[in-house]
Amino acid sequence: MKNIANLYKETRQSTVDLSKPLQKEDFIPQPENFVSPPKWHLAHSTWFFEEMILKKFMPNYKIFDKDFSFLFNSYYQTIGKRSKREHRGVITRPNVDEVMAYRAYVDENMNALLYNNEDENLAELVTLGINHEQQHQELFITDLKYIFYCNPIFPVYDRNRNDVNDVLGIDAKMVEVKEGIYEIGTNGNDFFFDNEQGRHKVFLHDFKISNSLVTNGEYLEFIEVGGYNDFKFWLDEGWTWRQENNIEAPLYWTKEKTGDWQIFTLAGLQPLNKDAILSHISYYEASAFATWKGMRLPTEFEWEAASHLFDWGKRWEWTNSAYLPYPNFSIAEGALGEYNGKFMINQMVLRGASVATAPGHSRNTYRNFFHPHFQWQYSGIRLAK
Amino acid sequence: MKNIANLYKETRQSTVDLSKPLQKEDFIPQPENFVSPPKWHLAHSTWFFEEMILKKFMPNYKIFDKDFSFLFNSYYQTIGKRSKREHRGVITRPNVDEVMAYRAYVDENMNALLYNNEDENLAELVTLGINHEQQHQELFITDLKYIFYCNPIFPVYDRNRNDVNDVLGIDAKMVEVKEGIYEIGTNGNDFFFDNEQGRHKVFLHDFKISNSLVTNGEYLEFIEVGGYNDFKFWLDEGWTWRQENNIEAPLYWTKEKTGDWQIFTLAGLQPLNKDAILSHISYYEASAFATWKGMRLPTEFEWEAASHLFDWGKRWEWTNSAYLPYPNFSIAEGALGEYNGKFMINQMVLRGASVATAPGHSRNTYRNFFHPHFQWQYSGIRLAK
Amino acid sequence: MKNIANLYKETRQSTVDLSKPLQKEDFIPQPENFVSPPKWHLAHSTWFFEEMILKKFMPNYKIFDKDFSFLFNSYYQTIGKRSKREHRGVITRPNVDEVMAYRAYVDENMNALLYNNEDENLAELVTLGINHEQQHQELFITDLKYIFYCNPIFPVYDRNRNDVNDVLGIDAKMVEVKEGIYEIGTNGNDFFFDNEQGRHKVFLHDFKISNSLVTNGEYLEFIEVGGYNDFKFWLDEGWTWRQENNIEAPLYWTKEKTGDWQIFTLAGLQPLNKDAILSHISYYEASAFATWKGMRLPTEFEWEAASHLFDWGKRWEWTNSAYLPYPNFSIAEGALGEYNGKFMINQMVLRGASVATAPGHSRNTYRNFFHPHFQWQYSGIRLAK
Amino acid sequence: MKNIANLYKETRQSTVDLSKPLQKEDFIPQPENFVSPPKWHLAHSTWFFEEMILKKFMPNYKIFDKDFSFLFNSYYQTIGKRSKREHRGVITRPNVDEVMAYRAYVDENMNALLYNNEDENLAELVTLGINHEQQHQELFITDLKYIFYCNPIFPVYDRNRNDVNDVLGIDAKMVEVKEGIYEIGTNGNDFFFDNEQGRHKVFLHDFKISNSLVTNGEYLEFIEVGGYNDFKFWLDEGWTWRQENNIEAPLYWTKEKTGDWQIFTLAGLQPLNKDAILSHISYYEASAFATWKGMRLPTEFEWEAASHLFDWGKRWEWTNSAYLPYPNFSIAEGALGEYNGKFMINQMVLRGASVATAPGHSRNTYRNFFHPHFQWQYSGIRLAK
Repeated sequence: MKNIANLYKETRQSTVDLSKPLQKEDFIPQPENFVSPPKWHLAHSTWFFEEMILKKFMPNYKIFDKDFSFLFNSYYQTIGKRSKREHRGVITRPNVDEVMAYRAYVDENMNALLYNNEDENLAELVTLGINHEQQHQELFITDLKYIFYCNPIFPVYDRNRNDVNDVLGIDAKMVEVKEGIYEIGTNGNDFFFDNEQGRHKVFLHDFKISNSLVTNGEYLEFIEVGGYNDFKFWLDEGWTWRQENNIEAPLYWTKEKTGDWQIFTLAGLQPLNKDAILSHISYYEASAFATWKGMRLPTEFEWEAASHLFDWGKRWEWTNSAYLPYPNFSIAEGALGEYNGKFMINQMVLRGASVATAPGHSRNTYRNFFHPHFQWQYSGIRLAK
Repeated sequence: MKNIANLYKETRQSTVDLSKPLQKEDFIPQPENFVSPPKWHLAHSTWFFEEMILKKFMPNYKIFDKDFSFLFNSYYQTIGKRSKREHRGVITRPNVDEVMAYRAYVDENMNALLYNNEDENLAELVTLGINHEQQHQELFITDLKYIFYCNPIFPVYDRNRNDVNDVLGIDAKMVEVKEGIYEIGTNGNDFFFDNEQGRHKVFLHDFKISNSLVTNGEYLEFIEVGGYNDFKFWLDEGWTWRQENNIEAPLYWTKEKTGDWQIFTLAGLQPLNKDAILSHISYYEASAFATWKGMRLPTEFEWEAASHLFDWGKRWEWTNSAYLPYPNFSIAEGALGEYNGKFMINQMVLRGASVATAPGHSRNTYRNFFHPHFQWQYSGIRLAK
Repeated sequence: MKNIANLYKETRQSTVDLSKPLQKEDFIPQPENFVSPPKWHLAHSTWFFEEMILKKFMPNYKIFDKDFSFLFNSYYQTIGKRSKREHRGVITRPNVDEVMAYRAYVDENMNALLYNNEDENLAELVTLGINHEQQHQELFITDLKYIFYCNPIFPVYDRNRNDVNDVLGIDAKMVEVKEGIYEIGTNGNDFFFDNEQGRHKVFLHDFKISNSLVTNGEYLEFIEVGGYNDFKFWLDEGWTWRQENNIEAPLYWTKEKTGDWQIFTLAGLQPLNKDAILSHISYYEASAFATWKGMRLPTEFEWEAASHLFDWGKRWEWTNSAYLPYPNFSIAEGALGEYNGKFMINQMVLRGASVATAPGHSRNTYRNFFHPHFQWQYSGIRLAK
Repeated sequence: MKNIANLYKETRQSTVDLSKPLQKEDFIPQPENFVSPPKWHLAHSTWFFEEMILKKFMPNYKIFDKDFSFLFNSYYQTIGKRSKREHRGVITRPNVDEVMAYRAYVDENMNALLYNNEDENLAELVTLGINHEQQHQELFITDLKYIFYCNPIFPVYDRNRNDVNDVLGIDAKMVEVKEGIYEIGTNGNDFFFDNEQGRHKVFLHDFKISNSLVTNGEYLEFIEVGGYNDFKFWLDEGWTWRQENNIEAPLYWTKEKTGDWQIFTLAGLQPLNKDAILSHISYYEASAFATWKGMRLPTEFEWEAASHLFDWGKRWEWTNSAYLPYPNFSIAEGALGEYNGKFMINQMVLRGASVATAPGHSRNTYRNFFHPHFQWQYSGIRLAK
């Protein structure tokens, strides 16, 4: 299990590295329900290893602190009226240093556990924990970006981390895929989440799909011809969302400082680069843009079947597929069983990966999912027809 | 076009017949946004014929009243802040008699127009209008039932119309369907709505589907073992819905009068009949029940492929398919284009038909759709695995 | 008790007279929580006589229908979850004719009871019931006006009832009142509500008060100089209210039909008459206007002490006094005890009366009260300093 | 101006002293709109001296950082849609150290300015700034207490600071006050806020007022006889508040850990001391308790007139007076003018002071004010009749 032990160390270190530009105050806020505080990501990913692995596999393991088990467990149901009102953003204690000590303690024990241990069940769970932590690495970045954006003075995370403006598009070309039966879902050779299970056949008709993602410049055209003001491009609930929230551009686009379009990035506020790939749009916006173009979004099945024909990995790509179980999907027993299945309603699938996805965390069967109004992930558009 | 002229007359008369048990006051209320007042259904279905047909096909047609065109058009976008606050339930004028006069005027003109007219385009639009009116006949009943239910004294619509308790289940048996490619969607021979377009192939794996619908008695077991209090059966958003709304049973089930389960029907409050087919449940409840049973809901494709193997038509059956466009679906031009496509998000497909569906309005390619929390339609459960 | 018997008959008849211009559909809607359906006013005022008088004073009185006792009782606390969702606007049954039959039945019994009866307690309660019914007569008109206003076609209640535009202002003059001790509250000689009890002394400093009410023309100046856009004239919560609701003028003022200011009246939409007395403003607007003028609103004590110095009765006049108990105010026992005291928080006192107040219902000790954001009463402004 | 210079230093130091038990993370959260983050109190009170004094009185003053002027100004109106969503709790930058540097910079300049300066206007403004900072010292404590309470592990602020349980009641006695004319409001000899202005005469009738505050034990009786479940003791809006928020006891009372009543204090969770003075109740609770006792709350005028007859200063005492202007109250020009007047609606006056009030900040003309549902201040009950 030397590989896994090393991967464990690297992954845990990467999370800590992400925290380095932060000051202690930055670890606390939760401006919206969909955001979790950075400290919570650090603690919850650690809780997973303690709760799911150390308590079961480590003889005589002594838990770090029982309060932590309670506070950083994302799975619990409501714990009475006080906790309803409580948001994660009010949990200042344990503080950042204590959470870092928690991480160190769990890491020390995990390292001891993994040393010379060849238990297959353990290996499987650790791999799940590593992938779980990688998911929280991405959320750490997207949540922190949102937190900083809510501050009127636009703090900088890392001057050298240009998450959106340096990611350039390529010349678009539609590639063709022939009708036929395709196999969808994990083949089980590599790690997979439960929602990729149930490899199965789908029949696809002939379709065309773009080899590139939509750029800021292309999307700007949609804005400039009044696309946000013409309901005929929009889904009915998309139009309502756009009206009620006064949405007039992707998230992080702003004219408030200079009168020209600027874009908030991890490196601070920057002029909009038209050649960069569009990011931070909702499904509603992706759908409206595609309708305006006379095209559509691909289904997740088309995307997977065609994924060898184009580069992907810069943006999570909204598909026109709802997040639902594959045939023969079944929910695992116990706490792990809650992993993904219970979210299979009212969300749309995104395929690919993004500039914030951990290296090695991507595969073409990966099913990400969000509600159609969310913009705060690195989400983009690939057209099909 | 004699057939269509006759069908027009019959359909229009059926709507009026549905109104007969109502008193004028009953035509007004809109207790929730998802309910429309009965008067609105009478007027809006008439507006469709005036707006889409008479104004285009009838030379020198004089509109009945321009206020009606405005008030009973469901397609308009917001008309300023006053109308936002306004709900349909506050439109007392024109009154019921005036709306009936509007119906008579439009019918007279339609009859004249259809007499000896063989225009194919006209025939197509009138057929659409008839189907549109049939949809509103069903909503008329389901909305009125909800209105009456909100009245603490439980008014009776029709003592002889036992909409739920007399519809009995049959002995359940799972029928098997073999894997293969199936054709889905309208073949275009009969009338269809735009969302049935794009006949296409799907690959289905082996599956089993019940030949019968779940009964009140079967569902009562789920209630009695505490199914509403155990979150492990529920989708996460379903559990939240159940908690926030204190849902403890299907809509129209109540113990408030006698302490025993009674059920509100069009014939008034009645003791629950355990042998009758379950009705008025949300997708969340259907999903939780199926999970408790160790089974699942069929997809809409499985349902359509297997529909010749069982009786259907008593309940709208929740499927595990999201309401999304078929391949090659395209939105028609103009006002008709808004018909169905713009609702293709956040809703689930129901297949079949119900005791409130107009005769002749059913077919096995029909795609009904509602948000997963709605209970007020005659919705039921067919299990698959 | 002949006087009371006659007054009873006249009052009851007046309520029915107010209903004459209505069609049955008009009796039903409740567009907002603060509005009650016209039918409810007819029934609830009748319920008061049945519940508080006939059941107690009439031997062998047989109640008209026990459902009515339940449905038209405004005092009951929540009756479970169904009734929370239920609004008064969904109670179509009993219908209007049945409510009129209820009125006739109760009137017949009341007439019999009052004939040759000299019981003082009875006389007192009947007087209270008459005053209660008069209050509902005013609400009947203000609620109906609001209902009609929500209908985009602006129905007319009575072409000859010009409730706002014909009520003209007079030349304004400030009258002076000298400091000293004044007696406030009912002297107990005439009928009074419980909140007028506790006649007591207040010390008033010198003040000046206008002999006239603000006109539409004067208020229009405030609008035209941008008074609605300058927060410095507004109370903080007033400004929030104005912003969140996009308030730009008094209720019933609109430019939507002609581009010029029109005003919705019981006689329909009319051009704004600048010489008419302003109506339908919130306390927040009254306060902002007074601040802009460099003046203030009078307290209810100043108003009462000065009321013999000016004409009043056309508008309910917002005062700068919160609705709180007088010294020695005490809540009566039983259901009657709930009459007024429990509302003594978060509301402001209005003094005077309005064009919709029943004749004989006014006196200078009368304390009306509403939350500061309400506009739908005939409310106006008298300045002081 | 040596006195003022010294008072300035002491006051500023006291604020810093209050911060000592905090860790950096504790300075950030804003769990509810009515709470401000501790860091915000530190910065905003400093901003006041920079904005109102240094920029005007100090030649060539160089502002510390223009972003601070923007972020810590409580008076600005909305700054566009982004800031609406933003709450103070998301402002992690400037961080705590930077805010402390801001304080030091402003203090250094203030000390220089005050040295040998005898300008009366300056003295007046500095005194206002000192009093403003004292107000924020109290809010600092009450807000921090609320923040800690929202954390399920109940952090301790200071083991030695027993803010509620050690403050004991005395034997209650009703003292009598005779009717007559009393003078109310500041006499102008000492510092006062604008809302105390307008010294004026009021006539008071005979009344009795308790020489002591209600204890936890007395209030517990009210709870134990079911006072929270009997609407007849409650104001109508108080009952709604109690129902919608499931209020069953004062804020910070809990049975969740041991099954017995405990109380959350600055020194952590403690058993309830029945002899201690009640704290953290809303006006609605105070009113319900008084009604249950057959008594009432005093008006703010009665309180002030009788204040020499009893000890006060442990709790803010809810009065039965709404927060409204005194006769001849006038709003000052400019930014200072916004100080208090614009909040004069929908709030009730509290008199006295509390265990969290800065020494020297109390006087018997002080008018504190909160909305009737707030519990998070050190609020108590004094009975009258």
